[in-house]
Amino acid sequence: MKKFPVIEIFGPTVQGEGMVIGQKTMFVRTAGCDYSCSWCDSAFTWDGSAKEDINMMTAEEIFSQLKETGGSRFSHVTISGGNPALLKDLHQLIDILHENGIKTALETQGSKWQDWFLQIDELTISPKPPSSLMKTDFSILSDIVEKLQTNERDFSLKVVIFNDEDLAYAKDVHTRYPDVPFYLQTGNDSLTETDDEKLLGRLVDQYENLIDKVMESSELNDVRVLPQLHTYVWGNKKGV
Amino acid sequence: MKKFPVIEIFGPTVQGEGMVIGQKTMFVRTAGCDYSCSWCDSAFTWDGSAKEDINMMTAEEIFSQLKETGGSRFSHVTISGGNPALLKDLHQLIDILHENGIKTALETQGSKWQDWFLQIDELTISPKPPSSLMKTDFSILSDIVEKLQTNERDFSLKVVIFNDEDLAYAKDVHTRYPDVPFYLQTGNDSLTETDDEKLLGRLVDQYENLIDKVMESSELNDVRVLPQLHTYVWGNKKGV
Ligand code: SF4
Ligand code: SF4
Repeated sequence: MKKFPVIEIFGPTVQGEGMVIGQKTMFVRTAGCDYSCSWCDSAFTWDGSAKEDINMMTAEEIFSQLKETGGSRFSHVTISGGNPALLKDLHQLIDILHENGIKTALETQGSKWQDWFLQIDELTISPKPPSSLMKTDFSILSDIVEKLQTNERDFSLKVVIFNDEDLAYAKDVHTRYPDVPFYLQTGNDSLTETDDEKLLGRLVDQYENLIDKVMESSELNDVRVLPQLHTYVWGNKKGV
Repeated sequence: MKKFPVIEIFGPTVQGEGMVIGQKTMFVRTAGCDYSCSWCDSAFTWDGSAKEDINMMTAEEIFSQLKETGGSRFSHVTISGGNPALLKDLHQLIDILHENGIKTALETQGSKWQDWFLQIDELTISPKPPSSLMKTDFSILSDIVEKLQTNERDFSLKVVIFNDEDLAYAKDVHTRYPDVPFYLQTGNDSLTETDDEKLLGRLVDQYENLIDKVMESSELNDVRVLPQLHTYVWGNKKGV
Protein backbone atom coordinates (compact mmCIF):
# COMPACT_ATOMS: atom_id res chain seq x y z
CA MET A 1 0.00 0.00 0.00
CA LYS A 2 1.04 3.51 -0.85
CA LYS A 3 2.28 5.83 1.94
CA PHE A 4 1.00 9.39 2.22
CA PRO A 5 2.73 12.35 3.92
CA VAL A 6 0.45 13.28 6.83
CA ILE A 7 1.20 16.27 9.01
CA GLU A 8 -1.86 16.34 11.33
CA ILE A 9 -4.85 14.19 12.21
CA PHE A 10 -7.32 15.79 14.62
CA GLY A 11 -10.96 16.13 15.59
CA PRO A 12 -13.81 15.83 15.80
CA THR A 13 -14.24 19.55 15.37
CA VAL A 14 -16.31 21.79 13.11
CA GLN A 15 -15.40 22.71 9.57
CA GLY A 16 -15.01 26.48 9.67
CA GLU A 17 -15.26 27.29 5.97
CA GLY A 18 -17.07 26.94 2.71
CA MET A 19 -19.77 24.58 1.50
CA VAL A 20 -19.67 22.34 4.57
CA ILE A 21 -19.32 25.12 7.14
CA GLY A 22 -20.33 23.90 10.60
CA GLN A 23 -20.01 20.20 9.73
CA LYS A 24 -18.75 17.94 12.51
CA THR A 25 -15.67 16.35 11.01
CA MET A 26 -12.22 14.86 11.54
CA PHE A 27 -9.30 16.47 9.71
CA VAL A 28 -6.45 14.76 7.89
CA ARG A 29 -3.89 17.31 6.74
CA THR A 30 -1.42 16.18 4.09
CA ALA A 31 1.98 17.78 3.54
CA GLY A 32 3.21 19.39 0.34
CA CYS A 33 1.92 22.07 -1.99
CA ASP A 34 2.65 23.13 -5.58
CA TYR A 35 1.75 26.73 -4.64
CA SER A 36 3.31 29.11 -2.14
CA CYS A 37 0.58 31.67 -1.50
CA SER A 38 1.83 34.87 0.11
CA TRP A 39 -0.76 34.59 2.90
CA CYS A 40 -0.89 30.79 3.25
CA ASP A 41 -2.29 29.89 6.69
CA SER A 42 -0.91 26.34 6.36
CA ALA A 43 2.62 27.19 5.24
CA PHE A 44 3.94 24.66 7.78
CA THR A 45 2.63 21.94 5.47
CA TRP A 46 5.14 22.87 2.74
CA ASP A 47 7.79 25.33 3.96
CA GLY A 48 9.88 22.80 5.86
CA SER A 49 9.15 24.32 9.28
CA ALA A 50 7.24 21.21 10.45
CA LYS A 51 9.27 18.63 8.55
CA GLU A 52 9.71 16.49 11.65
CA ASP A 53 5.92 16.25 12.06
CA ILE A 54 5.39 14.54 8.70
CA ASN A 55 4.48 10.88 9.04
CA MET A 56 4.46 8.59 6.04
CA MET A 57 1.27 6.58 6.54
CA THR A 58 -0.76 4.06 4.55
CA ALA A 59 -4.49 4.59 4.13
CA GLU A 60 -5.09 1.89 6.72
CA GLU A 61 -2.77 3.56 9.20
CA ILE A 62 -4.54 6.88 8.66
CA PHE A 63 -7.91 5.24 9.27
CA SER A 64 -6.61 3.56 12.46
CA GLN A 65 -5.34 6.89 13.70
CA LEU A 66 -8.68 8.54 12.91
CA LYS A 67 -10.52 5.89 14.92
CA GLU A 68 -8.06 6.15 17.79
CA THR A 69 -8.50 9.94 17.95
CA GLY A 70 -12.19 10.25 17.12
CA GLY A 71 -13.61 7.03 18.55
CA SER A 72 -17.25 6.60 17.56
CA ARG A 73 -17.75 10.34 17.52
CA PHE A 74 -17.44 10.96 13.79
CA SER A 75 -18.84 9.97 10.42
CA HIS A 76 -17.22 12.65 8.28
CA VAL A 77 -13.57 13.26 7.35
CA THR A 78 -12.09 16.36 5.73
CA ILE A 79 -8.86 15.95 3.81
CA SER A 80 -6.90 19.17 3.54
CA GLY A 81 -3.37 20.33 2.95
CA GLY A 82 -1.18 21.64 1.54
CA ASN A 83 -2.62 20.38 -1.72
CA PRO A 84 -3.93 16.81 -1.33
CA ALA A 85 -4.47 16.73 -5.10
CA LEU A 86 -0.73 16.05 -5.41
CA LEU A 87 -1.39 12.53 -4.07
CA LYS A 88 -2.24 10.28 -6.99
CA ASP A 89 -3.32 7.27 -4.94
CA LEU A 90 -5.49 9.01 -2.37
CA HIS A 91 -8.51 6.96 -3.51
CA GLN A 92 -7.06 4.23 -1.27
CA LEU A 93 -7.98 6.37 1.74
CA ILE A 94 -11.31 7.50 0.30
CA ASP A 95 -12.26 3.87 -0.38
CA ILE A 96 -11.55 2.79 3.21
CA LEU A 97 -13.54 5.72 4.58
CA HIS A 98 -16.52 5.02 2.33
CA GLU A 99 -16.42 1.30 3.16
CA ASN A 100 -16.81 2.38 6.78
CA GLY A 101 -19.77 4.64 6.08
CA ILE A 102 -17.76 7.84 6.40
CA LYS A 103 -18.34 10.85 4.16
CA THR A 104 -15.39 12.78 2.76
CA ALA A 105 -14.77 16.41 1.99
CA LEU A 106 -11.65 17.83 0.38
CA GLU A 107 -10.25 21.20 -0.62
CA THR A 108 -7.75 21.91 -3.37
CA GLN A 109 -6.82 24.99 -5.38
CA GLY A 110 -7.65 23.48 -8.76
CA SER A 111 -4.14 23.30 -10.18
CA LYS A 112 -4.26 19.55 -10.84
CA TRP A 113 -6.90 16.92 -11.63
CA GLN A 114 -7.13 13.51 -9.98
CA ASP A 115 -9.71 10.89 -10.99
CA TRP A 116 -10.56 10.33 -7.32
CA PHE A 117 -12.06 13.86 -7.25
CA LEU A 118 -15.18 12.07 -8.53
CA GLN A 119 -15.37 10.06 -5.29
CA ILE A 120 -15.26 13.03 -2.90
CA ASP A 121 -18.67 13.77 -1.36
CA GLU A 122 -18.12 17.50 -0.95
CA LEU A 123 -15.32 18.95 -3.05
CA THR A 124 -14.18 22.55 -2.77
CA ILE A 125 -12.11 24.04 -5.57
CA SER A 126 -10.44 27.17 -4.28
CA PRO A 127 -8.52 29.01 -7.02
CA LYS A 128 -6.17 31.62 -5.60
CA PRO A 129 -6.71 35.36 -6.23
CA PRO A 130 -3.99 37.90 -7.22
CA SER A 131 -3.02 38.76 -3.61
CA SER A 132 -1.68 35.21 -3.25
CA LEU A 133 0.87 36.05 -5.98
CA MET A 134 -0.06 32.76 -7.67
CA LYS A 135 -1.37 32.52 -11.26
CA THR A 136 -4.50 30.53 -12.08
CA ASP A 137 -4.24 28.22 -15.08
CA PHE A 138 -7.80 28.61 -16.33
CA SER A 139 -7.48 25.83 -18.88
CA ILE A 140 -6.81 23.34 -16.06
CA LEU A 141 -9.51 24.88 -13.86
CA SER A 142 -12.09 24.76 -16.68
CA ASP A 143 -11.22 21.15 -17.35
CA ILE A 144 -11.75 20.28 -13.66
CA VAL A 145 -15.07 22.14 -13.49
CA GLU A 146 -16.28 20.48 -16.67
CA LYS A 147 -15.42 16.98 -15.49
CA LEU A 148 -17.16 17.55 -12.16
CA GLN A 149 -20.25 19.00 -13.84
CA THR A 150 -20.44 16.19 -16.38
CA ASN A 151 -20.39 13.72 -13.51
CA GLU A 152 -22.96 15.75 -11.53
CA ARG A 153 -20.74 15.96 -8.49
CA ASP A 154 -21.50 18.01 -5.37
CA PHE A 155 -18.78 20.65 -5.54
CA SER A 156 -18.26 24.36 -5.14
CA LEU A 157 -15.86 27.15 -6.01
CA LYS A 158 -14.45 29.29 -3.21
CA VAL A 159 -12.36 32.44 -3.53
CA VAL A 160 -10.62 34.12 -0.60
CA ILE A 161 -10.76 37.93 -0.75
CA PHE A 162 -8.09 40.22 0.67
CA ASN A 163 -8.57 43.29 -1.56
CA ASP A 164 -10.47 44.79 -4.50
CA GLU A 165 -8.28 43.07 -7.08
CA ASP A 166 -9.23 39.76 -5.50
CA LEU A 167 -12.89 40.72 -5.70
CA ALA A 168 -12.52 41.47 -9.43
CA TYR A 169 -10.90 38.04 -9.82
CA ALA A 170 -13.81 36.45 -7.94
CA LYS A 171 -16.28 38.12 -10.31
CA ASP A 172 -14.31 36.75 -13.24
CA VAL A 173 -14.36 33.20 -11.81
CA HIS A 174 -18.10 33.38 -11.02
CA THR A 175 -18.81 34.73 -14.52
CA ARG A 176 -16.85 31.89 -16.13
CA TYR A 177 -18.70 29.19 -14.13
CA PRO A 178 -22.07 30.76 -13.24
CA ASP A 179 -23.77 27.44 -12.44
CA VAL A 180 -21.24 26.30 -9.85
CA PRO A 181 -22.15 27.14 -6.21
CA PHE A 182 -19.88 30.07 -5.43
CA TYR A 183 -18.39 31.10 -2.08
CA LEU A 184 -16.54 34.27 -1.19
CA GLN A 185 -14.48 34.11 1.98
CA THR A 186 -12.71 36.76 4.01
CA GLY A 187 -8.96 36.33 4.21
CA ASN A 188 -7.14 36.43 7.52
CA ASP A 189 -4.25 38.91 7.33
CA SER A 190 -3.63 38.76 11.09
CA LEU A 191 -2.08 35.29 11.25
CA THR A 192 0.30 36.31 14.03
CA GLU A 193 -2.29 38.06 16.21
CA THR A 194 -2.46 36.23 19.55
CA ASP A 195 -4.98 38.54 21.25
CA ASP A 196 -8.17 36.64 20.36
CA GLU A 197 -10.50 39.49 21.26
CA LYS A 198 -8.65 41.98 19.04
CA LEU A 199 -8.51 39.41 16.26
CA LEU A 200 -12.25 38.72 16.52
CA GLY A 201 -13.14 42.40 16.22
CA ARG A 202 -10.91 42.79 13.19
CA LEU A 203 -12.20 39.65 11.47
CA VAL A 204 -15.84 40.63 11.97
CA ASP A 205 -15.12 44.11 10.54
CA GLN A 206 -13.47 42.54 7.50
CA TYR A 207 -16.44 40.22 7.05
CA GLU A 208 -18.85 43.15 7.19
CA ASN A 209 -16.75 45.02 4.60
CA LEU A 210 -16.82 42.06 2.25
CA ILE A 211 -20.57 41.68 2.74
CA ASP A 212 -21.06 45.36 1.88
CA LYS A 213 -19.08 45.04 -1.35
CA VAL A 214 -20.86 41.89 -2.48
CA MET A 215 -24.28 43.35 -1.65
CA GLU A 216 -23.53 46.38 -3.87
CA SER A 217 -22.56 44.27 -6.87
CA SER A 218 -25.04 42.99 -9.43
CA GLU A 219 -22.42 40.60 -10.84
CA LEU A 220 -22.35 38.65 -7.58
CA ASN A 221 -25.94 37.65 -6.89
CA ASP A 222 -26.31 33.90 -6.45
CA VAL A 223 -23.31 33.66 -4.12
CA ARG A 224 -22.52 32.99 -0.50
CA VAL A 225 -20.27 35.17 1.66
CA LEU A 226 -18.68 33.52 4.69
CA PRO A 227 -15.92 34.08 7.23
CA GLN A 228 -13.51 31.47 8.54
CA LEU A 229 -15.71 30.58 11.49
CA HIS A 230 -13.01 28.60 13.34
CA THR A 231 -10.90 31.76 13.69
CA TYR A 232 -13.84 33.40 15.51
CA VAL A 233 -13.84 30.58 18.06
CA TRP A 234 -10.20 29.55 18.35
CA GLY A 235 -8.26 32.52 16.96
CA ASN A 236 -5.08 31.49 15.19
CA LYS A 237 -4.64 28.23 17.12
CA LYS A 238 -3.84 25.15 15.03
CA GLY A 239 -5.25 21.65 15.36
CA VAL A 240 -8.68 22.54 16.78
CA MET B 1 -55.17 38.02 -6.11
CA LYS B 2 -54.74 37.07 -2.50
CA LYS B 3 -53.24 39.60 -0.06
CA PHE B 4 -50.52 38.55 2.40
CA PRO B 5 -49.61 40.24 5.70
CA VAL B 6 -46.06 41.54 5.19
CA ILE B 7 -44.17 43.18 8.03
CA GLU B 8 -40.73 43.79 6.43
CA ILE B 9 -39.05 43.60 3.02
CA PHE B 10 -35.30 44.25 3.05
CA GLY B 11 -31.97 43.37 1.52
CA PRO B 12 -29.91 42.29 -0.19
CA THR B 13 -28.09 40.99 2.85
CA VAL B 14 -26.66 37.63 3.90
CA GLN B 15 -28.65 34.79 5.38
CA GLY B 16 -27.16 34.30 8.82
CA GLU B 17 -28.44 30.83 9.64
CA GLY B 18 -28.87 27.24 8.63
CA MET B 19 -28.55 25.42 5.34
CA VAL B 20 -28.13 28.57 3.24
CA ILE B 21 -25.84 30.41 5.66
CA GLY B 22 -23.95 33.21 3.91
CA GLN B 23 -26.30 33.32 0.91
CA LYS B 24 -26.90 36.76 -0.59
CA THR B 25 -30.64 37.18 -0.36
CA MET B 26 -33.61 39.51 0.01
CA PHE B 27 -35.95 38.95 2.96
CA VAL B 28 -39.75 39.02 3.01
CA ARG B 29 -41.05 38.69 6.55
CA THR B 30 -44.70 37.73 6.97
CA ALA B 31 -46.75 38.49 10.08
CA GLY B 32 -48.49 35.95 12.27
CA CYS B 33 -47.45 32.81 14.08
CA ASP B 34 -49.29 29.84 15.59
CA TYR B 35 -46.52 29.52 18.21
CA SER B 36 -45.35 31.93 20.91
CA CYS B 37 -41.83 30.72 21.72
CA SER B 38 -40.51 32.06 25.02
CA TRP B 39 -37.35 33.36 23.32
CA CYS B 40 -38.81 34.35 19.93
CA ASP B 41 -36.50 36.87 18.25
CA SER B 42 -39.29 37.91 15.88
CA ALA B 43 -42.08 38.39 18.42
CA PHE B 44 -42.95 41.70 16.74
CA THR B 45 -44.38 39.63 13.90
CA TRP B 46 -47.15 38.24 16.10
CA ASP B 47 -47.39 40.03 19.49
CA GLY B 48 -49.14 43.11 18.17
CA SER B 49 -46.22 45.47 18.92
CA ALA B 50 -45.65 46.21 15.22
CA LYS B 51 -49.27 45.99 14.09
CA GLU B 52 -49.06 49.32 12.28
CA ASP B 53 -46.16 47.98 10.15
CA ILE B 54 -48.21 45.17 8.62
CA ASN B 55 -49.05 45.77 4.97
CA MET B 56 -51.57 43.61 3.16
CA MET B 57 -49.86 42.98 -0.19
CA THR B 58 -50.50 40.85 -3.26
CA ALA B 59 -47.70 38.66 -4.61
CA GLU B 60 -47.22 41.18 -7.41
CA GLU B 61 -46.94 44.05 -4.97
CA ILE B 62 -44.37 42.10 -2.92
CA PHE B 63 -42.33 41.43 -6.05
CA SER B 64 -42.48 45.12 -7.07
CA GLN B 65 -41.28 46.12 -3.63
CA LEU B 66 -38.45 43.59 -3.80
CA LYS B 67 -37.32 45.01 -7.13
CA GLU B 68 -37.60 48.55 -5.87
CA THR B 69 -35.47 47.76 -2.81
CA GLY B 70 -32.98 45.27 -4.32
CA GLY B 71 -32.71 46.51 -7.91
CA SER B 72 -30.69 44.09 -10.00
CA ARG B 73 -28.63 43.06 -7.01
CA PHE B 74 -30.43 39.85 -6.10
CA SER B 75 -31.51 36.48 -7.44
CA HIS B 76 -32.54 34.84 -4.16
CA VAL B 77 -35.42 35.58 -1.78
CA THR B 78 -35.91 34.23 1.74
CA ILE B 79 -39.43 34.15 3.10
CA SER B 80 -39.53 34.15 6.88
CA GLY B 81 -41.91 35.02 9.67
CA GLY B 82 -43.61 34.51 11.97
CA ASN B 83 -44.74 31.31 10.36
CA PRO B 84 -45.22 31.76 6.61
CA ALA B 85 -46.72 28.26 6.51
CA LEU B 86 -49.96 29.83 7.79
CA LEU B 87 -50.43 31.38 4.34
CA LYS B 88 -52.26 28.92 2.13
CA ASP B 89 -51.82 30.81 -1.14
CA LEU B 90 -48.14 31.68 -0.86
CA HIS B 91 -47.42 29.73 -4.06
CA GLN B 92 -48.63 32.87 -5.85
CA LEU B 93 -45.48 34.64 -4.63
CA ILE B 94 -43.20 31.64 -5.21
CA ASP B 95 -44.50 31.35 -8.79
CA ILE B 96 -43.75 35.00 -9.60
CA LEU B 97 -40.27 34.70 -8.13
CA HIS B 98 -39.51 31.52 -10.08
CA GLU B 99 -40.87 33.01 -13.31
CA ASN B 100 -38.29 35.77 -12.79
CA GLY B 101 -35.40 33.37 -12.23
CA ILE B 102 -35.27 33.93 -8.49
CA LYS B 103 -34.58 31.11 -6.03
CA THR B 104 -36.57 30.87 -2.81
CA ALA B 105 -35.75 29.77 0.69
CA LEU B 106 -38.21 29.51 3.57
CA GLU B 107 -38.18 28.61 7.25
CA THR B 108 -41.06 27.24 9.28
CA GLN B 109 -41.37 25.31 12.54
CA GLY B 110 -43.11 22.30 11.01
CA SER B 111 -46.49 22.71 12.69
CA LYS B 112 -48.43 22.82 9.42
CA TRP B 113 -48.05 21.47 5.89
CA GLN B 114 -48.64 23.46 2.71
CA ASP B 115 -48.43 21.93 -0.77
CA TRP B 116 -46.25 24.84 -1.90
CA PHE B 117 -43.48 23.50 0.40
CA LEU B 118 -42.61 21.32 -2.60
CA GLN B 119 -41.81 24.44 -4.65
CA ILE B 120 -39.35 25.97 -2.17
CA ASP B 121 -35.73 25.60 -3.32
CA GLU B 122 -34.23 25.47 0.17
CA LEU B 123 -36.68 24.65 2.94
CA THR B 124 -35.72 24.70 6.62
CA ILE B 125 -37.96 22.91 9.10
CA SER B 126 -37.12 24.17 12.56
CA PRO B 127 -39.06 22.31 15.29
CA LYS B 128 -38.90 24.12 18.62
CA PRO B 129 -37.10 22.56 21.63
CA PRO B 130 -38.43 22.45 25.23
CA SER B 131 -36.96 25.84 26.22
CA SER B 132 -39.41 27.48 23.78
CA LEU B 133 -42.26 26.12 25.96
CA MET B 134 -43.92 24.87 22.76
CA LYS B 135 -44.82 21.22 22.12
CA THR B 136 -43.84 19.47 18.90
CA ASP B 137 -46.58 17.45 17.22
CA PHE B 138 -44.38 14.66 15.88
CA SER B 139 -47.15 13.15 13.77
CA ILE B 140 -47.39 16.39 11.78
CA LEU B 141 -43.60 16.75 11.64
CA SER B 142 -43.14 13.16 10.44
CA ASP B 143 -45.76 13.69 7.78
CA ILE B 144 -43.96 16.81 6.54
CA VAL B 145 -40.56 15.07 6.49
CA GLU B 146 -41.99 12.09 4.63
CA LYS B 147 -43.65 14.20 1.95
CA LEU B 148 -40.46 16.19 1.39
CA GLN B 149 -38.34 13.03 1.22
CA THR B 150 -40.74 11.29 -1.15
CA ASN B 151 -40.48 14.29 -3.44
CA GLU B 152 -36.67 14.45 -3.08
CA ARG B 153 -36.72 18.05 -2.00
CA ASP B 154 -33.68 19.98 -0.79
CA PHE B 155 -34.57 20.57 2.86
CA SER B 156 -33.05 20.41 6.32
CA LEU B 157 -33.99 20.20 9.97
CA LYS B 158 -32.67 22.85 12.36
CA VAL B 159 -32.92 22.91 16.14
CA VAL B 160 -31.98 25.91 18.26
CA ILE B 161 -30.21 24.97 21.50
CA PHE B 162 -30.45 26.97 24.73
CA ASN B 163 -29.79 24.20 27.30
CA ASP B 164 -29.16 20.48 27.83
CA GLU B 165 -32.84 19.59 27.58
CA ASP B 166 -32.88 21.19 24.13
CA LEU B 167 -29.82 19.15 23.18
CA ALA B 168 -31.59 15.94 24.24
CA TYR B 169 -34.55 17.02 22.11
CA ALA B 170 -32.20 17.62 19.17
CA LYS B 171 -30.78 14.11 19.54
CA ASP B 172 -34.32 12.74 19.50
CA VAL B 173 -35.18 14.66 16.32
CA HIS B 174 -31.95 13.60 14.57
CA THR B 175 -32.53 9.97 15.61
CA ARG B 176 -36.08 10.03 14.22
CA TYR B 177 -34.97 11.45 10.85
CA PRO B 178 -31.32 10.38 10.48
CA ASP B 179 -31.17 10.96 6.70
CA VAL B 180 -32.28 14.58 6.82
CA PRO B 181 -29.43 17.15 6.86
CA PHE B 182 -29.39 18.28 10.47
CA TYR B 183 -28.36 21.67 11.89
CA LEU B 184 -27.83 22.66 15.51
CA GLN B 185 -27.86 26.38 16.18
CA THR B 186 -26.95 28.42 19.23
CA GLY B 187 -29.83 30.40 20.70
CA ASN B 188 -29.50 34.09 21.49
CA ASP B 189 -30.60 34.74 25.07
CA SER B 190 -29.27 38.30 25.00
CA LEU B 191 -31.92 39.84 22.76
CA THR B 192 -31.85 43.15 24.63
CA GLU B 193 -28.04 43.51 24.75
CA THR B 194 -27.11 46.69 22.86
CA ASP B 195 -23.34 46.56 23.51
CA ASP B 196 -22.29 44.72 20.35
CA GLU B 197 -18.83 43.86 21.63
CA LYS B 198 -20.14 42.28 24.83
CA LEU B 199 -22.80 40.44 22.85
CA LEU B 200 -20.23 39.11 20.38
CA GLY B 201 -18.03 37.70 23.16
CA ARG B 202 -20.99 36.01 24.79
CA LEU B 203 -22.33 34.57 21.53
CA VAL B 204 -18.93 33.15 20.55
CA ASP B 205 -18.59 31.54 24.01
CA GLN B 206 -22.03 29.96 23.65
CA TYR B 207 -21.12 28.67 20.20
CA GLU B 208 -17.93 27.12 21.55
CA ASN B 209 -19.91 25.45 24.37
CA LEU B 210 -22.38 23.98 21.91
CA ILE B 211 -19.54 22.76 19.69
CA ASP B 212 -17.92 21.04 22.71
CA LYS B 213 -21.12 19.22 23.59
CA VAL B 214 -21.80 18.07 20.06
CA MET B 215 -18.20 16.91 19.59
CA GLU B 216 -18.47 14.73 22.73
CA SER B 217 -21.63 12.99 21.54
CA SER B 218 -21.64 9.90 19.36
CA GLU B 219 -25.36 10.36 18.68
CA LEU B 220 -24.70 13.60 16.84
CA ASN B 221 -22.17 12.76 14.13
CA ASP B 222 -23.38 13.72 10.68
CA VAL B 223 -24.55 17.15 11.81
CA ARG B 224 -23.67 20.79 11.39
CA VAL B 225 -23.26 23.25 14.26
CA LEU B 226 -23.70 26.92 13.42
CA PRO B 227 -24.22 30.27 15.12
CA GLN B 228 -26.55 33.04 13.96
CA LEU B 229 -23.88 34.76 11.93
CA HIS B 230 -25.85 37.99 11.42
CA THR B 231 -25.81 38.64 15.19
CA TYR B 232 -21.99 38.55 15.04
CA VAL B 233 -22.00 41.31 12.45
CA TRP B 234 -25.03 43.42 13.31
CA GLY B 235 -25.79 42.54 16.93
CA ASN B 236 -29.49 42.67 17.73
CA LYS B 237 -30.35 45.18 15.00
CA LYS B 238 -33.39 44.36 12.86
CA GLY B 239 -33.79 44.66 9.10
CA VAL B 240 -30.16 44.16 8.09
S1 SF4 C 1 -2.64 26.47 -2.18
FE1 SF4 C 1 -3.32 26.42 -0.04
S2 SF4 C 1 -1.76 25.21 1.08
FE2 SF4 C 1 -0.89 25.76 -0.94
S3 SF4 C 1 0.27 27.64 -0.52
FE3 SF4 C 1 -1.78 28.29 -1.22
S4 SF4 C 1 -2.99 28.53 0.66
FE4 SF4 C 1 -1.15 27.36 1.20
S1 SF4 D 1 -42.16 29.69 15.67
FE1 SF4 D 1 -40.62 31.23 15.17
S2 SF4 D 1 -41.79 33.17 14.81
FE2 SF4 D 1 -43.17 31.70 15.86
S3 SF4 D 1 -42.96 32.23 18.04
FE3 SF4 D 1 -41.49 30.56 17.62
S4 SF4 D 1 -39.55 31.60 17.12
FE4 SF4 D 1 -41.19 33.15 16.97
